[in-house]
Parts: sequence; C-alpha cells; structure tokens
Amino acid sequence: MDQLRNRPIIAVIGAGKCTPLEAEHATLVGREIARRGAVLVCGGLGGCMTNAARGAKEAGGITIGIIPTHDKSSANPHIDIVIATGMGHARNSIIVATADAAIAVGGSYGTLSEIALARKMGKPVVSLGSWEFAGDWEELSGVFRATDPIAAVDIAIREALR
Amino acid sequence: MDQLRNRPIIAVIGAGKCTPLEAEHATLVGREIARRGAVLVCGGLGGCMTNAARGAKEAGGITIGIIPTHDKSSANPHIDIVIATGMGHARNSIIVATADAAIAVGGSYGTLSEIALARKMGKPVVSLGSWEFAGDWEELSGVFRATDPIAAVDIAIREALR
Amino acid sequence: MDQLRNRPIIAVIGAGKCTPLEAEHATLVGREIARRGAVLVCGGLGGCMTNAARGAKEAGGITIGIIPTHDKSSANPHIDIVIATGMGHARNSIIVATADAAIAVGGSYGTLSEIALARKMGKPVVSLGSWEFAGDWEELSGVFRATDPIAAVDIAIREALR
Amino acid sequence: MDQLRNRPIIAVIGAGKCTPLEAEHATLVGREIARRGAVLVCGGLGGCMTNAARGAKEAGGITIGIIPTHDKSSANPHIDIVIATGMGHARNSIIVATADAAIAVGGSYGTLSEIALARKMGKPVVSLGSWEFAGDWEELSGVFRATDPIAAVDIAIREALR
Repeated sequence: MDQLRNRPIIAVIGAGKCTPLEAEHATLVGREIARRGAVLVCGGLGGCMTNAARGAKEAGGITIGIIPTHDKSSANPHIDIVIATGMGHARNSIIVATADAAIAVGGSYGTLSEIALARKMGKPVVSLGSWEFAGDWEELSGVFRATDPIAAVDIAIREALR
Repeated sequence: MDQLRNRPIIAVIGAGKCTPLEAEHATLVGREIARRGAVLVCGGLGGCMTNAARGAKEAGGITIGIIPTHDKSSANPHIDIVIATGMGHARNSIIVATADAAIAVGGSYGTLSEIALARKMGKPVVSLGSWEFAGDWEELSGVFRATDPIAAVDIAIREALR
Repeated sequence: MDQLRNRPIIAVIGAGKCTPLEAEHATLVGREIARRGAVLVCGGLGGCMTNAARGAKEAGGITIGIIPTHDKSSANPHIDIVIATGMGHARNSIIVATADAAIAVGGSYGTLSEIALARKMGKPVVSLGSWEFAGDWEELSGVFRATDPIAAVDIAIREALR
Repeated sequence: MDQLRNRPIIAVIGAGKCTPLEAEHATLVGREIARRGAVLVCGGLGGCMTNAARGAKEAGGITIGIIPTHDKSSANPHIDIVIATGMGHARNSIIVATADAAIAVGGSYGTLSEIALARKMGKPVVSLGSWEFAGDWEELSGVFRATDPIAAVDIAIREALR
C-alpha cells in the first residue's frame, strides 16, 4: 500500500442505467484498470459504476466511489472507499478532478457533464461509445475515441502518465 | 419588487471569452430577457456573461452572478447580486438549478457542462450557436435550437413557464 | 435598483426551529436590515430564516435565500431570489461568503458552522443570543455580542462597511 | 484490502498550523487509528493533518485527504488517496460526512466548522484540547472530551461502531 499515492487514478464515468453491452464494457474497463495497477474512481452508484467497480475488484484493484448523498450504504458493494459528498450533481466535478484521466462508457447527461468538466480541467477523456459532437470544435482535442475496453484503458493510462 | 419571486429566471451560459458575434448575441439575449420581465442569472464573470448582464441592465433588468470564487469584486460590473460560492466549476450546477431555463451562447467546455447539468435536472436548454451532438440520443429532446437572440428568449420563456 | 450592487449584504443565520423570542429577534433584525437599505441573505427555509425574511419584506427590503436542495418551492414565501444549490450543508459556506457580515440569532449546529465559516473567511459575526465559547481563543476577535436586534444590525452594518 | 469497506473511517480535524503539543497529539491519534484498523480521513494539508496522516502511515494505515483545491500535489506526502474537491471550505462537510466519527485536535475556525457540521449530521465528535462551549446547550450531547490521544481514539471508534 505504500505506493498507493503514485498509482494513476482513472475515472469511469457512465450512467446509472446501462445496456448489456455498456455493462460488459464497464466491467472489462474496470478489470483492466486494476490489472494495470491503477486506482478506479467513479460515482459509486449503479449501472456502469457498479459494473466498473466489480470488474476492478475481481482483478484485485482499489475502488473509490464519490457519491451524491450522505448515505454511504447507497454505494454499490464493490466500492472500497466511499466519499459522501451530499452535493448532488456537483459531485461530478470532484470525480474528474480526483482522476488523472476519464473513460466514458455510454452516455447520459451526467456523463456528458463529467466529460465537459474533465476537459475544462484539462484532463484527458476516452470515449467508449459515448457522446459524439458535431462540428469542428477546437476544444475536442483531448477527447480520444476507443473501440474496445482494453484500448480505452491503454489510452487513458498513457495520457494520465504524460 | 414584490413580485420578484414570480418572475422566470433565465440562465445565460457561455464562455468567458467570446467572438464578436457571440458578444452581440449575448447582449441581445440579456436585453430581451429583461424586457420580458425575467431575471437573468449567469456565472458573473467576463465574455458572454458580461455582455448578457450588460444587455439586461440596459433594459432595466435584474442580474444575478454566481461566481466560482469568494472574491465578489471579480464579478462583472453589470451584476446586481453576486453569489460567492468559492466552489470553482461546481458552481455551474447552481447556475442551472437556480434557473427555469437556460440559453447557451457559443460554447466552451464550461458551457457544455452547464447544458448537460441543466438537462440532467430536466431544465429546458436553448442553443444559440452552441454545441451540436451527433447521433440519435433520446435525451436530446429538451434542447432547442434558435437562430437569433429574440427567438432564443421566446423559446426559453415559453418552456420556463410550462 | 441600479445601486443594488453597492448595498451591504447581511446574512441572518439561525435555526429552522426557533423559540418565540428568537422568532421576534429574527423579525426585528430582518426589518432593520431592510430599513438600512441592506440586502438580507439567509438559508431560505423556516424558523429564524422565515422570520428574518418576513421582517425584511415588511420593510420593503430585498431577500436572498440560498437553499440546500434543488426544490425552489421549499424556500419560504418571503424570499425574493432563490438560489438552488442542491449541496446540502455545504450551502452554509455560500451564505456567509456572499454576505459582508452575519448576525447569528439563537443557535443550532448549522448556525455554529456558519459562524465558524464566516470567521474563517474573515467576515464579522454578531451574536444575538447565539453560541458562547469558553476559554481564551485568539480567534474570537471578530465575534461581537449584541443584546438587542437593533444593536445587532448596527454592529453588522458598521463592520460590513469597514 | 477486501475488507476495506468494513473498516470504520475516523476523521482527524485540526488546523493547518499547530502547536508542538497538538502535533504530537495528532501523530499519536493517527497512529492509534491505524493500529485499530480504521481508515483515517482528513483535510489533506499541513499542521495537524500532516501529523495525523504521518502517524497513521507509520503504523501501516490507510489515509484519505479531501483537499480544498484541484492541486493534488498540495496534499501532504502521507496521504494515500487524494480527493480533489476544488470547493474550498465547503470540502469540510465532505470530510465529516465521509467519516463515522471525528476527533478534533486543537482548534481553529475550520475545525469548529467541522465539529458543527459533524454534529449537524449526527456524527460523534471527540475533542482533544479543542473548542469548549459555554452554556447549557442540549445539542452538546454527542461531543465527548478526551484527555489523551489513546482515549480519544477509544471513544471515537466505540461511538463509530454503535
């Protein structure tokens, strides 16, 4: 545990309800994050968050859940460390600020807010079947697209370590 | 002032740096919000926020600025009421939660986070030259596109009063 | 309204449940704040907050309520401008950061947290029957004791304008 | 690590500047928290926070630092997991909400706000040379006084496990 501080922290951001494919993607992303020795941070609740945390724990990783309420028991059972913010959606900014890079699996508006806040803070974001933007926005550099979970974690850790 | 509580509150969300066209749009949006008797809320700083607040004050409106720091003097001079959050980007969620509808003028990542948070909370959003999303996301209902500032305020107030 | 920005903002901090004496004190404090042309900010809910806001409105003042939830209808009816933080107790720090001085009427733990946060930010606090501290803490300069509501507002506005 | 979620979380709250006695107390409190198998959470910065975290790490414990800024490098070197809130003093409410009990070592206004917020949330607080309150406040049940660091941790863990 002595080296815990030196491990990259990767956020998995995704909705509380997810499709079977997104659930599988989240699980594989979580597992790969743990295999690489990185720490997983997420919103601590259901859907993609549960699946990512379960994947990480299955591979022996460490998981942090930053939840919107004060009710620590609402965190999914795969979370090691529950941070109880009581701040509702404003906790989204804490998730991405705590991470060194973020992987977005699927997408809801909560996920979109996290992508935007991560980029606002200059953090790299990897999209795995998440939001796509039309037009030619300069700001879109820093958002990477991955086609499978392993590639997503590859990019996230590479960019986190830059 | 007795009826202040009953007025709709419209957020103008936009970047701290804006193009001349965006500045003009923000000014006209602010002016029209005030003309309709609505209260303007924004992030209180520069760029689109300054222009929108100036437009509203020119038309005799009331302006609220919800700023990221504790430094009330950092609010632009067209803000009547400065709410000093000290919460950085997390203040974005307060802006949209306080509003009944939001108008996005141009776009940066801060603006995108506000669009996402507003929609997450079920608030109507009007885009005036702001972010466009590719794909067929169900959640995109609730984001309206306007081609000019007057139309943007029309839609925002109509949706706010629903 | 043009000069709204220049008016001092005085926070009235006090519990959601209050004794009849505290209710009377809060009402008189609110009224005097408005008479002096200052803006009242409070937590927007019941007890001392309702009474202070009602007093301010009776004297023609302007009232801001910074509420813990996103439910604007939960603000008491004497609030002109409802800021919906959705941040629970963390909204306490926004109330005192927004104010130039604070008056504590009676006391609960919420009130104590606001006294502490106000002093942490260097804001003057006036206690009207609120918490008393034992011992000889250097930090206690900046907390003034008043014996009646008019004196409390006198001190708060004097200190706010320093 | 599998059982990490089941360990009590104890907050050590104290100022960024502390006396030699407070530094010693904080170190011994941190060490005892770790010996008992509890997780330490604190504000992540200097003074009491550094000393408590160092004590916990010397005894093989796990430390969480919930910092006010986005600058993870500002956390002291004894923090394993840095939560970067970017929310200034509002992060105080996250520290106590995340903990099952809090130990206050010495006292500043930041510490006082944490004591108050912890009690507001119903969390037990142990005072080790921290704030004393005059008068007969009903709310003061739930604040325990300890005369030495070991006793402080005894009480905190006993109350956390109730």
